[in-house]
Amino acid sequence: MSETPLPPGSIIGILGGGQLGRMLAQSAARLGFLTHIYSNRADEPAYSVSHAHTTGAFDDLGAVAKFAQACDVVTFEFENIPLAALEAAGAHALVAPSAQSLALTQDRLDEKNFLARLGIPLAAFAPVENENDLDAALDRTGLPALIKTRRLGYDGKGQAKIGYADEARPALASLGATCVLEAFVDFACEISVIVACGRDGKLVCYDVTENDHRNHILATSRVPSSLPPAHGKAAQDMAIQIANALDHVGVLCVEMFHTPHRSETPLVVNEIAPRVHNSGHWTIEGCGISQFENHIRAIAGWPLGPTERHADAVMTNLIGHDVDDWLGLASDPEAILHLYGKHDCIPGRKMGHVTRLYPRN
Amino acid sequence: MSETPLPPGSIIGILGGGQLGRMLAQSAARLGFLTHIYSNRADEPAYSVSHAHTTGAFDDLGAVAKFAQACDVVTFEFENIPLAALEAAGAHALVAPSAQSLALTQDRLDEKNFLARLGIPLAAFAPVENENDLDAALDRTGLPALIKTRRLGYDGKGQAKIGYADEARPALASLGATCVLEAFVDFACEISVIVACGRDGKLVCYDVTENDHRNHILATSRVPSSLPPAHGKAAQDMAIQIANALDHVGVLCVEMFHTPHRSETPLVVNEIAPRVHNSGHWTIEGCGISQFENHIRAIAGWPLGPTERHADAVMTNLIGHDVDDWLGLASDPEAILHLYGKHDCIPGRKMGHVTRLYPRN
Repeated sequence: MSETPLPPGSIIGILGGGQLGRMLAQSAARLGFLTHIYSNRADEPAYSVSHAHTTGAFDDLGAVAKFAQACDVVTFEFENIPLAALEAAGAHALVAPSAQSLALTQDRLDEKNFLARLGIPLAAFAPVENENDLDAALDRTGLPALIKTRRLGYDGKGQAKIGYADEARPALASLGATCVLEAFVDFACEISVIVACGRDGKLVCYDVTENDHRNHILATSRVPSSLPPAHGKAAQDMAIQIANALDHVGVLCVEMFHTPHRSETPLVVNEIAPRVHNSGHWTIEGCGISQFENHIRAIAGWPLGPTERHADAVMTNLIGHDVDDWLGLASDPEAILHLYGKHDCIPGRKMGHVTRLYPRN
Repeated sequence: MSETPLPPGSIIGILGGGQLGRMLAQSAARLGFLTHIYSNRADEPAYSVSHAHTTGAFDDLGAVAKFAQACDVVTFEFENIPLAALEAAGAHALVAPSAQSLALTQDRLDEKNFLARLGIPLAAFAPVENENDLDAALDRTGLPALIKTRRLGYDGKGQAKIGYADEARPALASLGATCVLEAFVDFACEISVIVACGRDGKLVCYDVTENDHRNHILATSRVPSSLPPAHGKAAQDMAIQIANALDHVGVLCVEMFHTPHRSETPLVVNEIAPRVHNSGHWTIEGCGISQFENHIRAIAGWPLGPTERHADAVMTNLIGHDVDDWLGLASDPEAILHLYGKHDCIPGRKMGHVTRLYPRN
């Protein structure tokens, strides 16, 4: 990538127009950038806060190329876009994160093999191309286990839990794709680490966030986490190691399980996301420079901003009809309310979030 | 105005598209509102962060009416729009602040007479319709004095200082409009108070801000101010008294001089602005709910948010070519940078601002 920081007024293209794209666009605007959103839906949360938008299929590479020609740098807000779209954009604009970061995190098996080669602690796993692989895979992972599609899963979609061996075959059939079997991890808590990686190779890391999921969807994130400081430091070091190994540019989120009762390692990496992440929304109010601004700074070749946390924070997602209580939340003096402007309230859909700050302990 | 809070998804119209409109639009978006900007320039800072915009003359009342038909509530970001535009909008949408707040603050003489009737301490003043009024006016104010046009002044435009009596006539002639003569106030410092007024009559007030001007343009604002607490409280009480007397809805800024050496009163009101104000930019990072969000909440009929300040803050405007140092500012770990996306860097033009936070003393 070019070594010259993009000046204010440059156009940042974002593949994907959901709430992550929206918050990226809002941060980009504050730094004087213009944003152009590309998405496959006619109405997206990011459109109404951006300078321009293009609606097109992600596999319409001609449309993606034309979009990229109008941009100075192109990034993405979710990893389920075709690799070919990012590559098509890369022929006409700077692209960050790289196709390599995207490709690796699009495929659970590739991702796990990559992490394993780095020596990152993982739950036991095995590939399952078809039902003939199941017995050997179950031998590797034991029970209970999780079977997940290699590609295109999110928020618990594309996965199933296997408590007994005879559940494996129907689960695989229902997923209808090549899969990975993973040992179920009996964790104390789920955490994530968000690291931002500059174009110059410098990295900054936010405090470890502790996450609670409900129905496989992130419900709350809180900082500080309950981890002992040494484990928190180890989690951050692992995230930095992964980001460095990927040569990543932009924000990267590493989700981990805290397993202090395991003798071999107190942390197991679950998955990585090559993008800003729901578990980092608290950084908007909790830090001087949020994950969104640091992503924009990184891809624009700007110096990264400080990640120091000036408050304790609890972020609560508003999922589905949680958002119907917007007036109650607006009346709560502790709640900082974010609504994503989505028209259709569907169960399980992330409609907004609330951050509450508390003086640092 | 309707008593029902506007739901998320409602459309907020803003007359004016400068940086104040831009930051209002950004706050409105975070609450799930859509924004529609009306301005008389083809390219405005607020356009690129808004859902829709209309470019038209402010005195094209047909165009303003059509704009208002597309909005649920219409507000304004500066007071130099024709009163008729706000009235035209009011025929088709809720309007806040009211035409009364706008009319009064558009005319320095009306504003001063209104404040004087409330018993608010002011510098001595006298109307100057033409040069025949000058001698009597100078008798009232003494020297030095300031002569200001009654209407359409900002950032030191439309005013002149009069050190000697024989400067008065040419100053009036150069201003070429009906004026007000004001006694020059020998102040210790300039302060401002920002108050937000809900549709239900409730008011919240931010901490007193101390302001430094250079060449009549705001250079820095800082909180806390250097005022003794009793004077700060008196300043807030005056701002609340003024807002109540206006029946104001939305944010109101009252600029005052601190004059602790004057025996009669330690505070003199300079002027009021019926809108969000440059001296309140620090509230974006210094408070949970900024002046911009509280303005949006107020005009939408939402409950107001807390104005508690969680940090000390210094806001510095980037004026003209100050903005050329964007990369240096981005490298300053203390600086939270806001750039307004203006294309032409003109001396005296506000191009952005920087806020620096410090732990509360």
